[in-house]
Amino acid sequence: MHKQNKLPISKVASAVEPFHVMKLLGEAKALEAEGREMIHLEIGEPDFPSLDCVHQAVTDAINHGNTHYTPTLGLPALREKLSRFYHDFYHADVAAQRIVMTPGASGALHLLLTALLNPSDKVMMCDPTYPCNREFVNLLHGEVLSVPVEASTGFQLTAELIELHWQPGIKAVMVASPSNPTGTLIEQPELLAMANFLSEQGAYLIVDEIYQGLVYERAAETILANANLPDNVVVINSFSKFFGMTGWRLGWIVAPEFLIPALDKLAQNLYLAAPTPSQYGALRVLESDALAALEQRRQIFEQRRNRLYDAMMSAGFKIPCKPAGAFYLYWDVSELTDDAEAFCQTLMLHTGVVVTPGKDFGEYRSRQHVRIAYTTGDNELLEAVRKIQSFINNDG
Amino acid sequence: MHKQNKLPISKVASAVEPFHVMKLLGEAKALEAEGREMIHLEIGEPDFPSLDCVHQAVTDAINHGNTHYTPTLGLPALREKLSRFYHDFYHADVAAQRIVMTPGASGALHLLLTALLNPSDKVMMCDPTYPCNREFVNLLHGEVLSVPVEASTGFQLTAELIELHWQPGIKAVMVASPSNPTGTLIEQPELLAMANFLSEQGAYLIVDEIYQGLVYERAAETILANANLPDNVVVINSFSKFFGMTGWRLGWIVAPEFLIPALDKLAQNLYLAAPTPSQYGALRVLESDALAALEQRRQIFEQRRNRLYDAMMSAGFKIPCKPAGAFYLYWDVSELTDDAEAFCQTLMLHTGVVVTPGKDFGEYRSRQHVRIAYTTGDNELLEAVRKIQSFINNDG
Ligand SMILES: Cc1ncc(COP(=O)(O)O)c(C=O)c1O
Ligand SMILES: Cc1ncc(COP(=O)(O)O)c(C=O)c1O
Repeated sequence: MHKQNKLPISKVASAVEPFHVMKLLGEAKALEAEGREMIHLEIGEPDFPSLDCVHQAVTDAINHGNTHYTPTLGLPALREKLSRFYHDFYHADVAAQRIVMTPGASGALHLLLTALLNPSDKVMMCDPTYPCNREFVNLLHGEVLSVPVEASTGFQLTAELIELHWQPGIKAVMVASPSNPTGTLIEQPELLAMANFLSEQGAYLIVDEIYQGLVYERAAETILANANLPDNVVVINSFSKFFGMTGWRLGWIVAPEFLIPALDKLAQNLYLAAPTPSQYGALRVLESDALAALEQRRQIFEQRRNRLYDAMMSAGFKIPCKPAGAFYLYWDVSELTDDAEAFCQTLMLHTGVVVTPGKDFGEYRSRQHVRIAYTTGDNELLEAVRKIQSFINNDG
Repeated sequence: MHKQNKLPISKVASAVEPFHVMKLLGEAKALEAEGREMIHLEIGEPDFPSLDCVHQAVTDAINHGNTHYTPTLGLPALREKLSRFYHDFYHADVAAQRIVMTPGASGALHLLLTALLNPSDKVMMCDPTYPCNREFVNLLHGEVLSVPVEASTGFQLTAELIELHWQPGIKAVMVASPSNPTGTLIEQPELLAMANFLSEQGAYLIVDEIYQGLVYERAAETILANANLPDNVVVINSFSKFFGMTGWRLGWIVAPEFLIPALDKLAQNLYLAAPTPSQYGALRVLESDALAALEQRRQIFEQRRNRLYDAMMSAGFKIPCKPAGAFYLYWDVSELTDDAEAFCQTLMLHTGVVVTPGKDFGEYRSRQHVRIAYTTGDNELLEAVRKIQSFINNDG
């Protein structure tokens, strides 16, 4: 320990932000260990395990000895199957050779940005956003250009905002639809306008479609289905969320063909290949019976969203945007606090309800927002709303 | 495609070296598709699948719903078990909280170097070396300081060489024991001398022990078993090689305690967590019956090494260092060619034997060396030697 000063860590490592909710979660676990019942509305993953048919397929594959490295870009059969999936479900024409299997969307985002960014290159993204996006850019010595977004644009960038905030040196713009933490979407014409504007500037548009299948009261979409899409669009996706396979660590990139050799060479070094058993599981989860089972889960999320949203609205809570996707709801707590982090902690101590302070997603009005994840059952969600309501009433 | 020039990739992506053997492998596969029989001596992974008991444990775990993200640092039970493993098998005192589970040693090396390196920081390593090490440093905008090593030091760095080549700005020295591509070891007193010298300089020693269990005619070792080890030593390891779990993508870091918070925060962003099923498999592979099965495989590798080495020596091939570990043998072809890459290609075309040109591992005398991997059965190994011998005799 006495050597700590002599042996420094890197500047990027010192600067990287922890997930602030982890501190809360630590305290919550300590309370649970004391026998206290907690309701977890902070968890960014489906509460369901992966599907039984996936487990069966993985068991078969590993018992057949399929436990070696796959090719770096992924199992050819899986890349083909994803290509067909895009065709069959999205009427999108995506050649298998444009698809790169990665260790989660996390691995995808890191790989892609490594392929694109030189030090000092700027990357535009909205605030609030998925926090790792900022860190990926920081770790590559790029510069994050955060654009504050309001409920009026669904907490999303628009082509207009991108143009308004345009400056030289921007290499890429990152968006997510549906988004974490807000659950909001970007409409296809808007995405296309972004892509075209950025194409003129010689910049990339990175669209994170990780919550793609989880949309409500409308059909799932992909930017890749747009005709005449310019070749500056890269899509990130993952088996984590809609497909319910978080722990399997498998995602993918759809890149323009000219990027594939660079992605291949970089991936050969960064991770060699994505996990093999997971790739066999993914082959199975793209079959129609599995997709039908996932559709039922989607309906459960939709019902939860409806119940939670309705209960919160009836209780007079302020939710500026009804989320249309993912499993998050972005709650405006400005009438209750101007320090959402402290608010979340007091809430947890008094009610046992754990939610994520806005701080984890950015700076802009983040002290006035809280993310609620409906990754737990209806009863717990409604119970949580009751508890929060009575806490607010007593506190106020 | 016309946009290729307008949309540039990063400098590090343009600069990264591909694995040169991949080109050979592509041609080999084309020949195989035509019905030609090839002998693969280029493959850097055990030919055995992972153990049945691992498959059973994974099947049980996933059927019990253990398919969610684990904590970022890894399953607590696995970190504990590795700690006990170090104690029981190596008499090394390694606290569980110093162990970080990673997506392979690949993920471990990248995570660790991200935690340590600022741009322009220098990292010393030997030439020849595991090629990804150079690229990890390049991707972080560090500077690789390659020290040419000779058969006289077993193709390894020594404390003396490190001192001789010392210069300001070196943040870390990377070694691997046993090594890829040479299969040679570094003795513990030498490692300790390196650690102590580097500690005085305020620099880290990174010891890649990924081939740890695969040693012949001697017991496996870890630098962590040395008493009075300074706290600048970080160990990299993996379930890929000795444990036969390449496709599972699971490795680990043993770091001094003061590095753990930085590694945790970085890993939260870079990969969230290592694959969950793999971690359950790893829990099983550390049980004594599994380790006994792996010991039998180790004996098979030892026998292959002996047969291959003896056959090559009898045939008059030049192998400057008899490998004591891993599953590689570094063959000096200087009497046959001064262009090992061309030699490997002609060899493949004429004999169907695929080996890896030295170029993949560095520059120093790499045109005079070839790596042979004995990751295939005895008969094929001996057949390959016969074929190579007759090729040389006819050619020469
Ligand atoms: C928007 C977004 N992108 C990417 C990820 C990374 O997910 P994974 O690495 O599990 O695919 C997440 C995880 O929460 C996310 O919310
Ligand atoms: C010396 C060395 N280190 C690290 C690795 C990475 O292995 P993995 O990521 O499968 O653990 C390899 C793979 O060949 C290697 O030879």
